[in-house]
Amino acid sequence: MKKINLLLTPGPTPVPSEALAVMSEPIFHHRTPQYRKIFSAVSEDLKKVFRTRESVFTFTGSGTVGMEAGVVNFCSPGDRVLVIEAGKFGERWREIAESHLLKVISLKAEYGDVISKEVVRSTLKKNKDVKAVFGTLCETSTGALFDIQGIAAQTKGTDAIFVVDAISGLASDRLEMDAWGVDVVVSGSQKGLMLPPGLAFLAANEKARKRIKEAKCPRYYVDLLRYDSALQKQDTPFTPAITIVLALRVVLDKILAEGMEGVWSRTERLAKFVRRRVHDLGLELFTNHLANTLTALKVPGEINGEELISVMRDQRGVTIAGGQGSMSGKVMRIAHFGLVSEKDLGVGLRILEKTLKEFQAGSKSVKRLKVCK
Amino acid sequence: MKKINLLLTPGPTPVPSEALAVMSEPIFHHRTPQYRKIFSAVSEDLKKVFRTRESVFTFTGSGTVGMEAGVVNFCSPGDRVLVIEAGKFGERWREIAESHLLKVISLKAEYGDVISKEVVRSTLKKNKDVKAVFGTLCETSTGALFDIQGIAAQTKGTDAIFVVDAISGLASDRLEMDAWGVDVVVSGSQKGLMLPPGLAFLAANEKARKRIKEAKCPRYYVDLLRYDSALQKQDTPFTPAITIVLALRVVLDKILAEGMEGVWSRTERLAKFVRRRVHDLGLELFTNHLANTLTALKVPGEINGEELISVMRDQRGVTIAGGQGSMSGKVMRIAHFGLVSEKDLGVGLRILEKTLKEFQAGSKSVKRLKVCK
Repeated sequence: MKKINLLLTPGPTPVPSEALAVMSEPIFHHRTPQYRKIFSAVSEDLKKVFRTRESVFTFTGSGTVGMEAGVVNFCSPGDRVLVIEAGKFGERWREIAESHLLKVISLKAEYGDVISKEVVRSTLKKNKDVKAVFGTLCETSTGALFDIQGIAAQTKGTDAIFVVDAISGLASDRLEMDAWGVDVVVSGSQKGLMLPPGLAFLAANEKARKRIKEAKCPRYYVDLLRYDSALQKQDTPFTPAITIVLALRVVLDKILAEGMEGVWSRTERLAKFVRRRVHDLGLELFTNHLANTLTALKVPGEINGEELISVMRDQRGVTIAGGQGSMSGKVMRIAHFGLVSEKDLGVGLRILEKTLKEFQAGSKSVKRLKVCK
Repeated sequence: MKKINLLLTPGPTPVPSEALAVMSEPIFHHRTPQYRKIFSAVSEDLKKVFRTRESVFTFTGSGTVGMEAGVVNFCSPGDRVLVIEAGKFGERWREIAESHLLKVISLKAEYGDVISKEVVRSTLKKNKDVKAVFGTLCETSTGALFDIQGIAAQTKGTDAIFVVDAISGLASDRLEMDAWGVDVVVSGSQKGLMLPPGLAFLAANEKARKRIKEAKCPRYYVDLLRYDSALQKQDTPFTPAITIVLALRVVLDKILAEGMEGVWSRTERLAKFVRRRVHDLGLELFTNHLANTLTALKVPGEINGEELISVMRDQRGVTIAGGQGSMSGKVMRIAHFGLVSEKDLGVGLRILEKTLKEFQAGSKSVKRLKVCK
């Protein structure tokens, strides 16, 4: 029997075999018509995924490079900004903003909770000098979906731009950059785009772009003016992660063939499937603000969640994610987007059920097996 | 007859097939014992390539991420620094330093030239407040090798740290970080390490590391304190370019099996081979300060270098590099490190010879062929 090898984590996610294949072809140079043609095409096609007419810039780096670009290109030291934080990635916005000497007003909620548009509206009303609001589409650490459309409506008509981390969420939960009036959207390669980590993306509308020249946060690698003038020549200012860009060409074909509405309804269907199954298993959801990207579950009873996840992964070939930071051991997270199918999720949940039962029965055999590995 | 496909550019360089192969295997999660074990091993083995006992930090990004990390982690706005610039990548040091509001003393020489240790010594003597000297091992834009050992001896005993861009040069031209007393070395994945672009590296000794806490340049993604504490747990602070790290495991095995002395003498032998051949062809070297990493040649006579390079690449399958920035059309650059063999170089040079002759004869057929492509 072939050993199961199921990756059900919210990034990295399984990479389509066609995309893996292009990454193993002999490499070629990026300052060539051959590469420029591909880069130019993916830059155009990314707009369809971001649902924008604006340029989408590609950085070589982790998603956090895109987030830092989303701060330093639009702000100056001392600027007052609003950060919406109710999880690890909301906190990251605050950390980045503070690192760059911005004055942060933090709208904080418990992990698993969200911040409503009403709270954002009243905070903006009391703080007219706020230059930017930083939020998250899907908070990967909790599985919570934020009301991006609602919040965008609050920043419209104010001086503040709305910068959204859609690193997880893009191409899994609905995001309409232009229609909703989101000013800046940031994303990464290893989530809904089904690629290995290594690329970050940023799109900015005119309201945001007007800020770039006056923004005084010191920057070089993520300076959008460099990316903008390079993009005019179908190029990046610095050597790109060529192999991942080639793979991007492949996955964009796949995504656009299905269409964004198709992608979103598929992830919604899978999310509902997972929630029915976990309800049957008597497991409790970690958040009431359910994203379609992933499901976060409370680890039941006295079980050590990290241990459970290790057993599932190392003995049974199913990788789900645990809790991050203070959530370690208390949360299990299952992704249901990208290549992941209902069948995969069914198998993963059966193995979760089996492993949970063993842990609940306090089966020593599981632990012995683990040590032997 | 199989079409030739020879990549003789100084980055990206051909990637070994074993390394390409691991990048096309199903991806797995990085917060796992499986990944940590590999990351920990490559972090150790990189020390042998950097010739240091210090930690080598891995960033996801272009080489420039490593350069920016080499500036902002060790300096504060207003600091006086010395930049050695005689080519595009020396200029990049200045641009990064100026972006971060450092006061730059520029030691400038013509493209193809170098700055001597004596000039560095006398400049440091006159400017005791200099906090850092930024230099380049091999200036990729000109093929010039700098006297890193000699310059390091000048910063020793001063307050200044010496930060070296060895993005091209590492694992091709000799660099002895600890023995020479270089304080910070920066590199990237797509040169001597024979990988696709996407990883940058930085090693810093104690003199440099002492600076990190007091360095006030705002930073987040490249903040070394985050990388240092993550490395204690065989981890990176942000999602790494997993596939390229797995390929790094493969190429490090290859490099360390040959040994650094073996690598350096091989590139020296290849460099000499190329120079004998180009001498026979009557071509003029662009620099007198010859690196073993690459050879830069003057484009002879009235020939348009960019056109020549296009014909070689698009019609004959041999990719060499042209001139960067103001050198465009005037310089041809041939790399001779990594996977490139004497046979490859022989073929590449024969095709260069043939194409040059056609251009010199003003053969219209070449241009016609080009247009038809």
